[in-house]
Parts: sequence; C-alpha cells; structure tokens
Amino acid sequence: MVLAIMERDLFTTDRLFCPGPTPVPKAALDAASATSVYHRAEEFYKIFRGCLTSLQPIFGCSELPVILASSGTGGLEAAMTNLTDAEDEIVVVNGGKFGERWQKLGEAYQCKVEVVQIPWGTKPDVAMIKAAISKQKKTKAVFLQANETSTGAYYGIETLVPELRKTFDGLVVVDAISSLGAHAMKMDAWKIDCVIAGSQKGFGIPAGLAFVALSKRAWQGLSKRPKFYFDLAKEAKGQHGEGRSAWTPANSLIMSLSATLEIMHQTGLDNVLAHHAQMAKAARAAFAAIGLEILPKNAQSNALTTAVFPSGIDGSKVLKRLRQRFAMFFAGGQDELKGKVVRFAHLGFVSRFDLIDGIAALEFGLAEEGYKFDVGAGVKAAMKSFMTKTSAQ
Amino acid sequence: MVLAIMERDLFTTDRLFCPGPTPVPKAALDAASATSVYHRAEEFYKIFRGCLTSLQPIFGCSELPVILASSGTGGLEAAMTNLTDAEDEIVVVNGGKFGERWQKLGEAYQCKVEVVQIPWGTKPDVAMIKAAISKQKKTKAVFLQANETSTGAYYGIETLVPELRKTFDGLVVVDAISSLGAHAMKMDAWKIDCVIAGSQKGFGIPAGLAFVALSKRAWQGLSKRPKFYFDLAKEAKGQHGEGRSAWTPANSLIMSLSATLEIMHQTGLDNVLAHHAQMAKAARAAFAAIGLEILPKNAQSNALTTAVFPSGIDGSKVLKRLRQRFAMFFAGGQDELKGKVVRFAHLGFVSRFDLIDGIAALEFGLAEEGYKFDVGAGVKAAMKSFMTKTSAQ
Repeated sequence: MVLAIMERDLFTTDRLFCPGPTPVPKAALDAASATSVYHRAEEFYKIFRGCLTSLQPIFGCSELPVILASSGTGGLEAAMTNLTDAEDEIVVVNGGKFGERWQKLGEAYQCKVEVVQIPWGTKPDVAMIKAAISKQKKTKAVFLQANETSTGAYYGIETLVPELRKTFDGLVVVDAISSLGAHAMKMDAWKIDCVIAGSQKGFGIPAGLAFVALSKRAWQGLSKRPKFYFDLAKEAKGQHGEGRSAWTPANSLIMSLSATLEIMHQTGLDNVLAHHAQMAKAARAAFAAIGLEILPKNAQSNALTTAVFPSGIDGSKVLKRLRQRFAMFFAGGQDELKGKVVRFAHLGFVSRFDLIDGIAALEFGLAEEGYKFDVGAGVKAAMKSFMTKTSAQ
Repeated sequence: MVLAIMERDLFTTDRLFCPGPTPVPKAALDAASATSVYHRAEEFYKIFRGCLTSLQPIFGCSELPVILASSGTGGLEAAMTNLTDAEDEIVVVNGGKFGERWQKLGEAYQCKVEVVQIPWGTKPDVAMIKAAISKQKKTKAVFLQANETSTGAYYGIETLVPELRKTFDGLVVVDAISSLGAHAMKMDAWKIDCVIAGSQKGFGIPAGLAFVALSKRAWQGLSKRPKFYFDLAKEAKGQHGEGRSAWTPANSLIMSLSATLEIMHQTGLDNVLAHHAQMAKAARAAFAAIGLEILPKNAQSNALTTAVFPSGIDGSKVLKRLRQRFAMFFAGGQDELKGKVVRFAHLGFVSRFDLIDGIAALEFGLAEEGYKFDVGAGVKAAMKSFMTKTSAQ
C-alpha cells in the first residue's frame, strides 16, 4: 500500500508488470525474514542443496546446477568465462539487448565472435547460425537466448537446437533467464550444454541469484582462463557436496527461493507451464481486441507480450501515466523500440486477475492519451480467453 | 500468497470482497508489528488520542469519540446501555440483520421497543418512524442504521434524520458501522446524538475496535443502569484527557488505525467519499450490463452493492466456487436472502482494480454455473464507468 497521494488513484498499490523483477509471493517474503539462519551451518546447507535438487528438473539436466550470488549477467559471465578461453571462436545470436550482451561478453573476454544479427522481434533460424559457424575454423560454442527479453521473442529452442545439433557438436549455451518457469527446458533431451537463469523472473523472488547448469561434457571441458568469484568448478565442489557455496551465499534470497520452488513443485511443473501459456494467450487476445499488434510475429513468448503502441500514441507517456496514476510499472521499449512498445509480463507468480488488471490499466492509459477504441474490449477478450482454458489447470 | 493447490487457480491470493473485514493496507499491517509500544506510556497515549482527533471529523461531531476494545456489536451495546434505562420507550428500525440486532439489544436491556419493520432491501421513510413514535408516551430514542449491511440498503440519513427532527427531539442513534468512510456523516449538522462505527469496515484494519461518538446532550443525559466494561463516561474521562483507556486497549489495532487514518486524511476525506461513490457507480454499471438486478431499488449504498442472482442460478454454489477456485471471499445473503444475492463490497482501502477483479471473478463463477450472458460485459461496463470519473479524484 502506497500512501494515496493526489497524483495517484486512491488506495492503489505498487505493482510490477515488467519482465522481472516479478511479484514476490507472500510465502517468499516471509521466508526471507528468517535471516537468523546462519549460512555456515548444516541447517542452511540442507536448504541450499534442496534448492539445487528442486531446480534440477526445471533445467531438465542430469547434472545439478549451481547458484551464484549475482544477478543474471553474472551467470552469463560465468558461462562465458568457464566455457571459453581467449581466442576461442564463438557464435552469438544478437536479436536484442541480451543477444548484444552475449556479444559484448565474448568480446570482453577476447573470443573471436561471429555475430548472427537478426531484426529485433524476430527469431533466428538454424540456417543463419550454420552460416556463421561455417565462417569459423572450429566454433567452440554458440551463445543465444531462449527468450529475448528486450523484444519478447521466444526463439523456439526446442526445435532450433535439436536441428542445429544435426551438424554441430560444439557447445550450445542458452540464456534462459526470462524463459525458465514459463517455457519448458530439457537440456539433456535437446543437447544443450549450459543454461543460465535468474531469481527475479519465473522464480518470483527478488534479483540477486543466478542459476547455471552445465551438461556433463561441459563440466569435463572447462576453460583454463583466470577466474575467481565465478569459478563454477569450485562452486560445484562445495554446492553439490554438502550444499556449501564457495563465497557467502545471499542467505535471505535462498530462503525465499526455497519457498517459491516448493510452490512450483506442489503446483506441478506442467501446470506452471500451462498457466503461462494460458496467460500469454489471454494477453494476445486482449491486445488484438483493442487493435495493438504483437511485435514478435511468429515467436510469441509465454513470459511476456510485447505490443506495439498505435501510431500517434507516445508510449512513453502512456507508461509514465500508469506509473503516476496507478503505481503500475510496465516496461517500455529499449533503444530502437523506445516509446514504441509495451512489454507486458505475465511471468512467475501472477494470476489471471493480475493480467486483467494490467490490461485494464493499459486501456485506461491509452484512452486517456487519446487513442480511440472500445474501452474494456481488451479485458473482455482476455476473460473470454480464460473461459476456454483446458485440462492443465 | 496461498499455496496454489490444485483446486485453486494458480498463484491466486486470498482476497476479501465481503462488507468487512475489508482488505488491510500494508502500512497498517506494518504498524501492527510495533507491538513493543507499551500501552501504559505517554508515547502510546499520544497515538491513542491522535486517533480520536483524526476520527472526529469523520463523525462530524464537536465532541471527541471514544474507542472500545470490542467489535461493532460492543459499540451498539454501549450505545444502548449508556443511553437508555430499563422501561424506557424506544423505537428501532428493522430492515435486516442489524436492525434486528437493535431490537434484540433493546429487548435484552428491558426497554419497551416499538419496531418499524420494513421489507429487506428497502429504506424507512420518516412517516413510518413518526407512526411508531406516536404509539409511545415518550420515546427516549430512535435506533437505526445508516447502512443496513445485510441488504446493502443505505437509509439516506442526511435527509431522513433532519426531517424527523422537525417533530422529534428525543435521541437519535445511528449504527454507521458499514457506512463511515463510504458515506458522509455530520452528527452536529444533522442533529444525531450517537454514532457507532467499527474498525474492520471503512477504516481498513482488522476487527476489534468500536468507535462511539455522542452529542453534547447525549453525554449530559447518560443512563443510570449498571454498566462496567462499556461505561462510556469512564472511557471519556481517560481517553479525552491524556488518551488513556479505562481497560487494556487493543494496542496493535490502535497502531494500525493510526496508519489508516493518516492515509485517509492525507488523501482528503472528500476524496475518500468520492472514491466510494465512484466505486458504487461502477459496480452498478457492471451488474446492469450482465443482467443482475440490484436489491435496494432506491437506497443504493456506496459501501456495498447487493445484486440478485438470476433465477435458476444457485448463488451459494457460485460463491463457494469462487472461494475454492480463486480464494475470493464474497458475502452471500442471510436468512430470507440466503443463496439469492451477492453482497459485493467496495468499502475501505480498495482500488478500481480490486473492483474489476471482483466483477471478473463473479462473471467467471456465473458463467461456470451455467448463466448465459456475454462474459466480460460487466467488467467492460465498470471500466467505461471509471472513464467518466470527475474532478474529485
């Protein structure tokens, strides 16, 4: 509850509709207050290791992941520095801000980087990646996103990676930071060597934890380059053993993570994924009903829906209005998409009513900014979409 | 956040849409955790007395109210026992469960009770009350509700009481438990002698506090009958002085009350009232759009909207479904209205998005119970109603 100052609608509460950090369920907030748990004690190690075993099926990996006390970019850096050495040839897919981050990381750590540059809002096809690989002598690894958070494009890795695997046996590294929990991940089945995720997305806790899972062969071929804080082998030794991290763990976040993982497993991972698919479907129906196009044409994410503002409407003003009036935070576009799109997240612990509220708020904001449409039509379409939900829930 | 068990929609949180207890804002929850404040200390007295002065303008009374550590019925009892003696003649208006409570209290305390019995869902007119008074030798007091919570009928006391005052100079006692904060109250201007309110309604904190305000002449003519815990004169002496209650105050609730009163005053009392009027208007628009009639025809409350379920629809099943599926709690009908109505509250610290969610949930529940209508039309109508809001917000 925010004090209802006059610029804000009465009794409106701060709410996040951005693609991370996502809303934190009460159970996780409560768990975080158990800060009296000492982090170098058996009790905490047990909770920490419990998180690893609970995360494992979400990665679909026969190896346990490791947890780093860092935000997602720390996990990306760990993947880059633990899996490549300087001068290694790598391919990165750049379809937005996070593909660009792979490129910058590769360059910073002196890899020879071949970039698959694709238009924002599209997904790569396997031929593009193969073409990049063909320009190199021996490609050590391909780096890409599962879901490009800056555009809301889901790359369809469940078909893309197996297709690539027919001709490529180097490493495949997937930034799944905004997709895990919303889209399936089967590292073993799809032959992915490294997947990175973060706490503040599908896992519904604040930022500050990165999760990195490596395949068996990735663990066996770690880099020789200097590393210290993000030394995955060192982390694996302690974490996979008694559940002890090399450096001080982010203790309150681990307690929260334990709480949300329990909710996810009790709900059932298939149900969690079906829920996200249902939410994305309702969001698309809502935007279609009020005449807003979805940016990614054939690559719609289940984690967020990126809708294009109507021409003549300044999206930045709409979103600013919603922050001021309703204390609701939506992500806009970055760089070339600035002011042009809204990135509406339905990721993590959000219900159909959260989605309804977010669509309603956007409708209010659009109407007040002068867009002519049938106010309420978006929410109505979302509601009808929810009425068609099937067995999974 | 409730654990998303399989009978519930994923990630749904417990939410109250009943006419009290109403949702408690975070500031009030946080304030309640300051339980280390000792209740017999200057610091606490100051907070306690601050609550009295903050409550005063909400009652529109030149006298300070008193706060009792009881639920609302304790406040009603205090009014009855402090303002009447055994054998006194009184008139009570009975238009629902809470009018009936006045009657039972009067009878329990051996008053001679003349009942103005009106059909549930209607409001009394002044002629009915005058007729009851005319049957008595000397009516000590008239007891009625401002808002009959069991039917959602608002009695229009701002016209009813001044009209009655033209011919009646006994005491007028108004149970405003579910109206204060949603409807204006001007005790002095409307010549009301006693108003009772409760913490868990428009004040947005949990149940456990009753507020009783008396007019100057009511304080001067207190009863002689035995009383102890609810001795208002004794309370006034300590509370109006240094801010010290006679018996142990409900300390955490006082801390919460202080927090919500601050929000109400910073928002502005006129804005709080306008907000409730806007909410009620939107609720009526929503129910009209999906074909549900409002029970009180000419007495619609700004605190709650009582809608009649369509014939053939078992309302109890709809509401049970919403509890199980969405963890949303709506009040149904009592006694003769059981299964026939929903009492949808928009009282206290609830936003337009809460109202939208509540209407959406009712629409889902009605559709799943077999009612044929245009799903989403209710929410759409509420949204259009919010677009027509005027200056007050």
